[in-house]
Amino acid sequence: MNSKINSDQRSFLYKQLAGEIEAKIRSGAFQPGEKLPSIRMLHRQLNVSITTAHQAYLELETTGLIEARPKSGFYVSPVSLKQLRAPVHDRVSSGPRRVELGSMVNAILKAITDPGMLPLGSSAISTELMPARHFARTMKDMSIREVQARIGYSLTEGSPELRRQLAVRTLGLLNGIDPEDIVVTNGCTEAVTLCLQAILKPGDVLAVEAPTHFGFLQLFKSLSIMVAEVPTHPEYGVEIDALEELLSRTPVKACLFMPNFHNPLGSLMPDENKARLVELLNRREIPVIEDDICGELFFEGNKRPSLLKQFDRKALVLTCSSFSKTVAPGLRVGWTIPGKRFKEKVLRLKAASTVCTSTLDQHLIARFLDSGACERHMRKIRRAVKGQLLKTVVAIGKHFPEDTRLAVPSGGSLLWVGLHPSVDGLGIYRQALEEKISILPGSACSLSGGFRNYIRIGCGHPFTEATEQGIQKLGRIIADLAAGSKRTDFLS
Amino acid sequence: MNSKINSDQRSFLYKQLAGEIEAKIRSGAFQPGEKLPSIRMLHRQLNVSITTAHQAYLELETTGLIEARPKSGFYVSPVSLKQLRAPVHDRVSSGPRRVELGSMVNAILKAITDPGMLPLGSSAISTELMPARHFARTMKDMSIREVQARIGYSLTEGSPELRRQLAVRTLGLLNGIDPEDIVVTNGCTEAVTLCLQAILKPGDVLAVEAPTHFGFLQLFKSLSIMVAEVPTHPEYGVEIDALEELLSRTPVKACLFMPNFHNPLGSLMPDENKARLVELLNRREIPVIEDDICGELFFEGNKRPSLLKQFDRKALVLTCSSFSKTVAPGLRVGWTIPGKRFKEKVLRLKAASTVCTSTLDQHLIARFLDSGACERHMRKIRRAVKGQLLKTVVAIGKHFPEDTRLAVPSGGSLLWVGLHPSVDGLGIYRQALEEKISILPGSACSLSGGFRNYIRIGCGHPFTEATEQGIQKLGRIIADLAAGSKRTDFLS
Repeated sequence: MNSKINSDQRSFLYKQLAGEIEAKIRSGAFQPGEKLPSIRMLHRQLNVSITTAHQAYLELETTGLIEARPKSGFYVSPVSLKQLRAPVHDRVSSGPRRVELGSMVNAILKAITDPGMLPLGSSAISTELMPARHFARTMKDMSIREVQARIGYSLTEGSPELRRQLAVRTLGLLNGIDPEDIVVTNGCTEAVTLCLQAILKPGDVLAVEAPTHFGFLQLFKSLSIMVAEVPTHPEYGVEIDALEELLSRTPVKACLFMPNFHNPLGSLMPDENKARLVELLNRREIPVIEDDICGELFFEGNKRPSLLKQFDRKALVLTCSSFSKTVAPGLRVGWTIPGKRFKEKVLRLKAASTVCTSTLDQHLIARFLDSGACERHMRKIRRAVKGQLLKTVVAIGKHFPEDTRLAVPSGGSLLWVGLHPSVDGLGIYRQALEEKISILPGSACSLSGGFRNYIRIGCGHPFTEATEQGIQKLGRIIADLAAGSKRTDFLS
Repeated sequence: MNSKINSDQRSFLYKQLAGEIEAKIRSGAFQPGEKLPSIRMLHRQLNVSITTAHQAYLELETTGLIEARPKSGFYVSPVSLKQLRAPVHDRVSSGPRRVELGSMVNAILKAITDPGMLPLGSSAISTELMPARHFARTMKDMSIREVQARIGYSLTEGSPELRRQLAVRTLGLLNGIDPEDIVVTNGCTEAVTLCLQAILKPGDVLAVEAPTHFGFLQLFKSLSIMVAEVPTHPEYGVEIDALEELLSRTPVKACLFMPNFHNPLGSLMPDENKARLVELLNRREIPVIEDDICGELFFEGNKRPSLLKQFDRKALVLTCSSFSKTVAPGLRVGWTIPGKRFKEKVLRLKAASTVCTSTLDQHLIARFLDSGACERHMRKIRRAVKGQLLKTVVAIGKHFPEDTRLAVPSGGSLLWVGLHPSVDGLGIYRQALEEKISILPGSACSLSGGFRNYIRIGCGHPFTEATEQGIQKLGRIIADLAAGSKRTDFLS
């Protein structure tokens, strides 16, 4: 019988089994350090093949959740995800303020992008996980005539072939999106920039999550817009009651949120929150820009999380994303679906500031989306990033102080790590630099001066021995800083 | 003896001869319609070979300056460049004003980029003139490892290989420019955008030429900067006395000028004007952004025109350019040399708005610059564009009304055509659209409401029978509009 099961079915079987065991580990049914049922036992009791049972354990081993002990079998990793408690944010909320950034910003940005560092401060995903082979083949196959067509200007709104592919990808997610509704941009950041410019004048107030994406703060400053920060839950995203309260006392002109796998939090807004949020903003006629750059990097199930735009009845949600986290960061291709109210303005702004997006980059991405390779690749990269992230979580559990707080996200590549209140993330950042490790201090993600005892750790790169050692060194730095502050407490 | 002359020397000989004959035509020594000396006569009197003389005439024929008549010989084109008189601008000058743009802007932009139109409204250069073959070969030769490296993020400031090539290209032009002084951008427009943002706050006053690049007006509006227009000579560029007068009564925070082959004028500032301009602005500590996008498209001699930056003693000139006019418009690669006062700010702004420039595009351009093919290509494209432009001038001379005014530029691809004061460029634009021809109405290049009787004609595409017919149709539209206005004069 088994010989009739094809490889797709077999892969489905072992992944299903691995998922069930993972759920039992997460729920605590299997305890940290506990020996797992033997392969033979799974075979007999669950009526699965030996191969399936073995593959399920190998799959779990790549995530760091379980470990093989020679001649003994498989054990739950001694550090359980369950031990880690989610961070509890101080309620950071503020009236609108002008964006003032310290000189640290440049230094932090340099450290994060320095190739000589262990890149734990970076939100980038390694190009080792990207489909270079596919792009190489496409480039080899291009005739001189095709090349000639791809080195000419593209339309400001983007190439027709790419916009068609993007429209196809919204099927089942958004209703009635045509290629004409999409504007191609130089990455997600340009998409957000154009949408902000289309809605806001200098001095207007934008509501953002606290904390928010580090890079956005400089953008707000350069656009001279005022910023009001909304308390945001580390697991469930922006707090809607707090937003409502802010709207009642402040003339907010627009919102910029990251509902799916937030940067830096990793939080995911539940659908009911998304519905309520859009309902509130629709009612008040306030546009909201959603940055969905990590939406495709989901870890659970087969369906990507929903978009705010799905709940929009008034063309007030502007969705922005890109392929930087999944396909190719350096091919600068992002896009926005700004909706009928803002599309013409977005187009005019793009024509004025960058004219158009690289025609060749658009072609390469469009060809990849059109190929059979795309969906397989997406599954592969999701699994790889999930594995890297879980291994990092396990390493943090092993090497960081016991009072470390962390909610394991269900997508994206970022960990938001809460530390003892006496530990300053900026101090960790400085000492880590000397060990050639970059991290992002939490305070760099907010204008409030809050989140001082948080750091963001990126898991976009393959987890190696060097990563393990880096986490260990960070753990030692944190423990030393905590001990130092206790000594100071004692002396004062 | 001749057999020892190699092909480079021969090519030098016939080009020199062609240049001498061209000078005689331009000066009027050879009159429009006049028969030129026979090839045999040139051979005997000038002691050049029959081949050289023949090639010289063929070379001139490609520019439209002369024409071959079967069984009769070569004749000066019946329309001489000499007949065309340079336009004389009304003195457009204004105090600072906010940028308000009509709804025409979008329509004009669409017409200019519509591939179904004869693109006389476009400032683009045809990709038929670009080195597609070279890019195709580079892409074919890239290994998968190389591709992997080129799909990752580049540094915000640009790839080291490209910045090195760009620095090499400044040798003999600017002193002491290191790769670190250069910031790579998404084309010249992003370079200008970042420099404007680095210097100006919303509400600050920028001085620009009248007329200026059509696309810049939307940019000024989106940055909320005030604009003061400076009278600009159609041949010699911005009028420095007028600028000085403006500075004495207005708090100008920066200038944005196009000294070399201005868009739309085609004007070239003489070196003494450049020196005086920079001296004036240096003395008053006012930064000036120079857009040099057409600087490499010069028609005369072997040396490109000078940069304002060569005259700068105070790090107040920010030079911007790109490869869009010479190598590949759709590979979005431009750059700026913002100088030590503004570089860090430009970098921060770029990181916040577009993160980095396409890594693959940068690689392809860098490899092309590094190849032996680059200089040969530059000579070829200069010659081709010059030929296209001169043929267009000749066609205008043939088909436009006699009172048409036009200064033949010595570089770039644009013609600024002055018409009878009663003819409205917007009317020409509308009627030309119906004939599937795009042009740019002069009034779209200024906020003043002036330049109504001007149009800009682009010569970036090969001059074909369709171009000739397009110019003929435009001539008829203009004649009809002029006759209509005379009828109206008569009736009123």
